[in-house]
Amino acid sequence: MTTQRPAVVLLSGGLDSTTVLAIARDAGFDPHAMTFRYGQRHEAEIQAARRVAAHAGVGDHVIVDIDLRTFGGSALTADIDVPRDRAPDAMASNGIPITYVPARNTIFLSFALAWAEVLGAGDIFIGVNALDYSGYPDCRPEYIAAFERMANLATRAGVEGTNPIRIQAPLLHLTKAQIIRRGLELGVDFALTTSCYDPDARGWSCGHCDACVLRLKGFADAGARDPIAYV
Amino acid sequence: MTTQRPAVVLLSGGLDSTTVLAIARDAGFDPHAMTFRYGQRHEAEIQAARRVAAHAGVGDHVIVDIDLRTFGGSALTADIDVPRDRAPDAMASNGIPITYVPARNTIFLSFALAWAEVLGAGDIFIGVNALDYSGYPDCRPEYIAAFERMANLATRAGVEGTNPIRIQAPLLHLTKAQIIRRGLELGVDFALTTSCYDPDARGWSCGHCDACVLRLKGFADAGARDPIAYV
Repeated sequence: MTTQRPAVVLLSGGLDSTTVLAIARDAGFDPHAMTFRYGQRHEAEIQAARRVAAHAGVGDHVIVDIDLRTFGGSALTADIDVPRDRAPDAMASNGIPITYVPARNTIFLSFALAWAEVLGAGDIFIGVNALDYSGYPDCRPEYIAAFERMANLATRAGVEGTNPIRIQAPLLHLTKAQIIRRGLELGVDFALTTSCYDPDARGWSCGHCDACVLRLKGFADAGARDPIAYV
Repeated sequence: MTTQRPAVVLLSGGLDSTTVLAIARDAGFDPHAMTFRYGQRHEAEIQAARRVAAHAGVGDHVIVDIDLRTFGGSALTADIDVPRDRAPDAMASNGIPITYVPARNTIFLSFALAWAEVLGAGDIFIGVNALDYSGYPDCRPEYIAAFERMANLATRAGVEGTNPIRIQAPLLHLTKAQIIRRGLELGVDFALTTSCYDPDARGWSCGHCDACVLRLKGFADAGARDPIAYV
């Protein structure tokens, strides 16, 4: 058995990060999964991340508690209505949506960086996407590049010139349909995942929030069936 | 009364960040203080930060709980002996000390960035120092510049081109003695602060860890008396 290099994989339990986990494993890494409990209005995401990590045989999965509600300002963490039934074009053209969480990916990547340094891992995987991204500033390629540059100055690697940090964002330029096809090729079971911003008490997806609209369109474009339950 | 611009000030309760708070106020900002409870082995830092913020009349002081112990790897968060009685030259020449906390300033600045975005603040103050810094990679000028660049791509400011983020590190090129003199000029009460990595049960400083050695040398070089209690 060859020794696999460790990598940190940010895992939300959605279809993007679940596909990223499969990509990291397929590329020969030993994935260490990191999930955040950050004041979401529901625990469905955390449960999905646990299912996905267990199913993928990830040996090391940490749930990090951080309280972004202290800062307010987002439909995902405060008590604001999530937009419904917006066409994908409208999501992108209306600027930054109210579901944007300030500096969320920066906080997530910072924790991943700390863990990577402790593990001696050089690679951090994140499922950001610049096409279906709904206007989030911290999902753009130039942001990812700037974070990587900063990370290499922030850590032992930066001082000692060893084991440079790579922020791996393999979905950056894929459409949702391409992500789904790639996941299916790698054997991902999308029934374990969840994307909805506003699931019901059973964990069934609403089918109307931006995340559901993009997901359903992605499966339709990919010619595949979405195996999760909708209200 | 003029309207003061809001700024986020990272406040540890040490003499550096306490001086930075005074500098931010002196520069005309309305400081919003942010302190982290990150698995320190003692609560003395948090208590000092509360005293300092109250004494400075800061209206908005948040204590953010994050658990860096999950990651291990540092004398400040794990159960490793803190080095004693090292000369300042030895701290700098021995590479990165074991008291380094992986990616700590990156995590702290990321939370500050989130809060700044919610407050509509463009300025984030941090008391990092490149001279007496004991070899921490995330206290170097090039690191601060890279974080600022990343921050402006991470946020609404980056997309909309408004209210750019400035990481203000006014102590970056000062000696400890210069920091103490600046603090005294601005009326800082250093009796409220603490710096020790290993205080006793009363909160008295050990006088032997790197932080105490640098602090005591700083007061001696400044020709001032350190008003805190030592064992």
